[in-house]
Amino acid sequence: MQPLGAIEQHGPHLPFNTDLLIAERVAGAAVDRVGADLDVWLLPPLAYTKSNEHAWSPGTIWLSATTLLAVLDDIGRCVATTPARKLVFFNGHGGNSALVGVANREIRLAHGLMTFLAHPGLPPDQGGSSPVDELGMGVHGGTDETSIMLHLAPHLVDMSVATRNVPAELGHNEYVRFGGPVGFGWLSDDFGPGGHIGDPVPATAERGAALFEGAVDAFCGALAEIARFELPMVSESEDRRS
Amino acid sequence: MQPLGAIEQHGPHLPFNTDLLIAERVAGAAVDRVGADLDVWLLPPLAYTKSNEHAWSPGTIWLSATTLLAVLDDIGRCVATTPARKLVFFNGHGGNSALVGVANREIRLAHGLMTFLAHPGLPPDQGGSSPVDELGMGVHGGTDETSIMLHLAPHLVDMSVATRNVPAELGHNEYVRFGGPVGFGWLSDDFGPGGHIGDPVPATAERGAALFEGAVDAFCGALAEIARFELPMVSESEDRRS
Amino acid sequence: MQPLGAIEQHGPHLPFNTDLLIAERVAGAAVDRVGADLDVWLLPPLAYTKSNEHAWSPGTIWLSATTLLAVLDDIGRCVATTPARKLVFFNGHGGNSALVGVANREIRLAHGLMTFLAHPGLPPDQGGSSPVDELGMGVHGGTDETSIMLHLAPHLVDMSVATRNVPAELGHNEYVRFGGPVGFGWLSDDFGPGGHIGDPVPATAERGAALFEGAVDAFCGALAEIARFELPMVSESEDRRS
Amino acid sequence: MQPLGAIEQHGPHLPFNTDLLIAERVAGAAVDRVGADLDVWLLPPLAYTKSNEHAWSPGTIWLSATTLLAVLDDIGRCVATTPARKLVFFNGHGGNSALVGVANREIRLAHGLMTFLAHPGLPPDQGGSSPVDELGMGVHGGTDETSIMLHLAPHLVDMSVATRNVPAELGHNEYVRFGGPVGFGWLSDDFGPGGHIGDPVPATAERGAALFEGAVDAFCGALAEIARFELPMVSESEDRRS
Amino acid sequence: MQPLGAIEQHGPHLPFNTDLLIAERVAGAAVDRVGADLDVWLLPPLAYTKSNEHAWSPGTIWLSATTLLAVLDDIGRCVATTPARKLVFFNGHGGNSALVGVANREIRLAHGLMTFLAHPGLPPDQGGSSPVDELGMGVHGGTDETSIMLHLAPHLVDMSVATRNVPAELGHNEYVRFGGPVGFGWLSDDFGPGGHIGDPVPATAERGAALFEGAVDAFCGALAEIARFELPMVSESEDRRS
Amino acid sequence: MQPLGAIEQHGPHLPFNTDLLIAERVAGAAVDRVGADLDVWLLPPLAYTKSNEHAWSPGTIWLSATTLLAVLDDIGRCVATTPARKLVFFNGHGGNSALVGVANREIRLAHGLMTFLAHPGLPPDQGGSSPVDELGMGVHGGTDETSIMLHLAPHLVDMSVATRNVPAELGHNEYVRFGGPVGFGWLSDDFGPGGHIGDPVPATAERGAALFEGAVDAFCGALAEIARFELPMVSESEDRRS
Repeated sequence: MQPLGAIEQHGPHLPFNTDLLIAERVAGAAVDRVGADLDVWLLPPLAYTKSNEHAWSPGTIWLSATTLLAVLDDIGRCVATTPARKLVFFNGHGGNSALVGVANREIRLAHGLMTFLAHPGLPPDQGGSSPVDELGMGVHGGTDETSIMLHLAPHLVDMSVATRNVPAELGHNEYVRFGGPVGFGWLSDDFGPGGHIGDPVPATAERGAALFEGAVDAFCGALAEIARFELPMVSESEDRRS
Repeated sequence: MQPLGAIEQHGPHLPFNTDLLIAERVAGAAVDRVGADLDVWLLPPLAYTKSNEHAWSPGTIWLSATTLLAVLDDIGRCVATTPARKLVFFNGHGGNSALVGVANREIRLAHGLMTFLAHPGLPPDQGGSSPVDELGMGVHGGTDETSIMLHLAPHLVDMSVATRNVPAELGHNEYVRFGGPVGFGWLSDDFGPGGHIGDPVPATAERGAALFEGAVDAFCGALAEIARFELPMVSESEDRRS
Repeated sequence: MQPLGAIEQHGPHLPFNTDLLIAERVAGAAVDRVGADLDVWLLPPLAYTKSNEHAWSPGTIWLSATTLLAVLDDIGRCVATTPARKLVFFNGHGGNSALVGVANREIRLAHGLMTFLAHPGLPPDQGGSSPVDELGMGVHGGTDETSIMLHLAPHLVDMSVATRNVPAELGHNEYVRFGGPVGFGWLSDDFGPGGHIGDPVPATAERGAALFEGAVDAFCGALAEIARFELPMVSESEDRRS
Repeated sequence: MQPLGAIEQHGPHLPFNTDLLIAERVAGAAVDRVGADLDVWLLPPLAYTKSNEHAWSPGTIWLSATTLLAVLDDIGRCVATTPARKLVFFNGHGGNSALVGVANREIRLAHGLMTFLAHPGLPPDQGGSSPVDELGMGVHGGTDETSIMLHLAPHLVDMSVATRNVPAELGHNEYVRFGGPVGFGWLSDDFGPGGHIGDPVPATAERGAALFEGAVDAFCGALAEIARFELPMVSESEDRRS
Repeated sequence: MQPLGAIEQHGPHLPFNTDLLIAERVAGAAVDRVGADLDVWLLPPLAYTKSNEHAWSPGTIWLSATTLLAVLDDIGRCVATTPARKLVFFNGHGGNSALVGVANREIRLAHGLMTFLAHPGLPPDQGGSSPVDELGMGVHGGTDETSIMLHLAPHLVDMSVATRNVPAELGHNEYVRFGGPVGFGWLSDDFGPGGHIGDPVPATAERGAALFEGAVDAFCGALAEIARFELPMVSESEDRRS
Repeated sequence: MQPLGAIEQHGPHLPFNTDLLIAERVAGAAVDRVGADLDVWLLPPLAYTKSNEHAWSPGTIWLSATTLLAVLDDIGRCVATTPARKLVFFNGHGGNSALVGVANREIRLAHGLMTFLAHPGLPPDQGGSSPVDELGMGVHGGTDETSIMLHLAPHLVDMSVATRNVPAELGHNEYVRFGGPVGFGWLSDDFGPGGHIGDPVPATAERGAALFEGAVDAFCGALAEIARFELPMVSESEDRRS
């Protein structure tokens, strides 16, 4: 299993390695719990991924799309030389999801592995939820992510500079909004100079602890299901025939 | 607005240009209805896109991921030399969505355009729905797509060879399923030799007509919203300050 | 058979899709006439090709050389998975000829197909002719191309802004001229701001009709010859031996 | 001025460096004669170019199309940093012509140079001629090329193994033939195992001497015309206006 | 400062993450000691680098040369957007040195940073030393590397399977040997199936502790010198002039 | 054997083709002496290589890193189709060494050849020496290189503009210096506007003659050793077992 983090700005209140730290910690906890039973191998995390929505922000370190595709393909090519038949990307950074979705098909086709994409918590713009008060738009450095960081690494969080930054206008849209039926290409400075999108102010370590445990539980469940999963799969119609 | 089709197998009952034809026809109808008012320009469709989930199928013509990324970037680069500030990809093939999601951010960053991704109908593995009887898995050549084709081009549909092909087992999964919280890299022959996934048998031209009209309506609505949409966007917190 | 068009400026009097429209219409007419007999399959046209000689012109949409090479290679790779053994590029845009010439060899070597490059009308800088009054330099939007458009789509032609633009000085050259023994890399704005090269003023729909019919006839003849063509080919010396 | 050679099989009777040697010698002789007057700088030749029509032949060393495009672009980029405004490719290998044609436009657009493509002798499949007895098909190692080598480097020519290899059947074609209106992608072993195409048997050093002198004369003339050549160029219509 | 590790076989006695662990631990110790004084920022390590000399070994995960060049360039591009003017690669894997040497010049030219390449211990084939008894050929999993691992992570070392694997014959060469005047491209299985090159048998934790401390000392010294280093540099002759 | 030269500025006193000329002449002399005995084939030199440390200098012609890697890989791919099992790069330009070191492993892995990197004289920053008076820093256009050119091509050397340019300050460094334990990415204008690094003033043709003869002797010795060299190689431990 391959954790994917990011080194990117997360607003003034969170550290650059937020996504990396969360992905590593959830992945580590899940592997500690079910790794031996399910024969899960934990690969070292990728710290640098596709963070170009924050390219305006000094300190963000991002790989270009074609470079990251090549990195993921190289990993798939190498894993395919081992007895492992499955490769799980555990992705702490929502900005990677589309590209990993592309890579998963490439790797399945080119190297024959079964490939998966899981998250510590589904980003709100990808089918996940965020608190009502955030209008469902806590996509980067908002209540939930900040809460988890308060739980995992409070010394790296500076709540004194945490401010609400919710593009409320976007919520009125029927089509073009986070998670809406029409996707759109955004940069994090399209929503103000802070760089975060969401409301970190109500974040608490308690909420973070619960979210963290939920993420570990969910990922353990997902790993168990992945362990049972097989492709190719017999479809219903074929089933009936036999 | 740039329609994206595909030339790929769609099971034994549908033609290779199914996605291309649907994207072109919905896009054309929408532009006929609202194009002049909203100042929408219709670009010629891309027939060949990312169909490598059907690479096993002779006659499928697909571009590699890096090639299609380059094509979309070239389009963005050229559109950015015109007075247009927005570029809408209207995508008839679900297998393109992740890659266009990547491209939309690349084009916004590299060329400054606002970029959008809309569909004639959201694929069931991307937040869309499909009939209950299909277990929500009509992702390729199923009831809805076949219905639309019966409406638009019945002479290209051969219902005599239409068979149900629903991987029911997948529906029992909590995590790893079409549209589930864990994505997976699949090829269309992972679900049987037919190549389609879904149940075309109940498809009717009437259903197709309704779906087509709904798709045109929705896209007209989306185009209107896109026409009003602006980035960068003033966020709530900034709003309050001023 | 793969038509290649272009979306590029054609001077003030012709539309951007001139090359695409002509390639599609000639190809379509030829396939209608001989397609069934010769077992010719018509692929959807490539609208965007290599038009960077018009990169200065907003609205021209062009693929980079390496991107278009990759697109053509992808097409060749996919066609080679079918029973077809031959791939004909039918090229409406002279600016593509050199690159398709490169691709034809690449595809023959990499994918084993026999590959061909035909044109609706050979460009005057590639062995074709243009009216004497144009000094043989009607390479872009001149008498012949404009005539064909007046025949095929008069509503897209604006003869009121058609002006002669012939770089007469070039015609005095012995070596460096269109179709001369020394090739040269030109951009369309090297010959004035209009963007066309040639003289559209004498163009007529009648001339266009004749040229169109001639192009269809010639392409039908070429397709018949291509259908009989085989590589590898027995050479004379080997012949004698047996 | 940049000579382009090739290291590729030339049939059993000619050495691998035939194209390189001819390009170097003609270029050298021309620069000796007119270089000082015309301010021509002679760059070191590229020995390895695009010879993949001979990929089947051990000892042929060829660059891939994208690699050679990159090499030519690098040369253009560097030459553009000097006071030179023109770059002439002097190409001894017909298999390069299409690709250099592509590169010439790329370099003009990207680096602003005026670019040219000249040959020691136009290949018969590119508008040049070859002896009637060869049916105009002496494209590789035929009468003329062998003659020039007998003049320049007779110790490298082995006439005892020279055999006629003319694909006479091809000459009957109206469209698909060397230099015909329909191009085709060929490999040199498509015309028999010898690897040459043409008839070296009648070659003589005397003919070679005359061809060599003619090539030098022609290239001197071309260089003089190139020295006077300027882009952008005033077109006739603009001329009249002023 | 960017640590570079590797995930690659290190013979039967050492873990795959040997280079990563050593690079991280030496870098961490050095930054702990002098980081604050010298204003050194520690970036997250790259675990996957250029290990293709071990491509035969399942479990080795390596990036292709062009991919790793692109990754290093991306890092350089991003660091150059910060106030930092220097980028130090701290490389635990000898197989990366040549490629980082290339990258350092690319990054200096493209992004203007001063770039450096340091090692926890110079590999014996790159100017470093290894014990006499190893004939100076402890390049991979030999006495010194094994000793450091016994010091840092003894639970990951299995001395019961440690065997001597020294290609003594190579030591007799005057030119072609590790660190000799003629370099050569080797794969680790060119020297036997074990995959390591050197003699781990005499390794001890004590030796490892001393080597580790020496490496930290040396790197602290290097960092101090790097902090004072400036380019461009006034040369002697210019100095005299002023 | 493949000579590698360079076309790059060498200070005001030496010609741009210095590295090319030296590599060709030493290689030629060595092949004349031992080529027949050792079955060495001399390939035509690569004139353009990786000279981007001189990118600031008009007239320097350099290939990008990825382009040169591709060129070297193409050469390796083609040589591997012949009976030759070994490929020697004879490199006259120190700026190529790291990249050829990368390529040597790539070619060994991808094409199975044994690959080697030799030099006319090891650059002082790569383990070679330079006169004491130069402080060991005659890396580009210094005493030794200038001497060899005075021997080989005195008409191309202009000693009247030869000046000492030694970055003495660098010599005081313990880590970061030419050939020191910490590498650094430098451009030739980092050491003053002259472009050379070293002291050409004491250069003499006599010294050059001796250096040239020494280089030829050394390369002949290296070629003999290479001719005996074999990979894979039996290691000591395996030897004992049998």
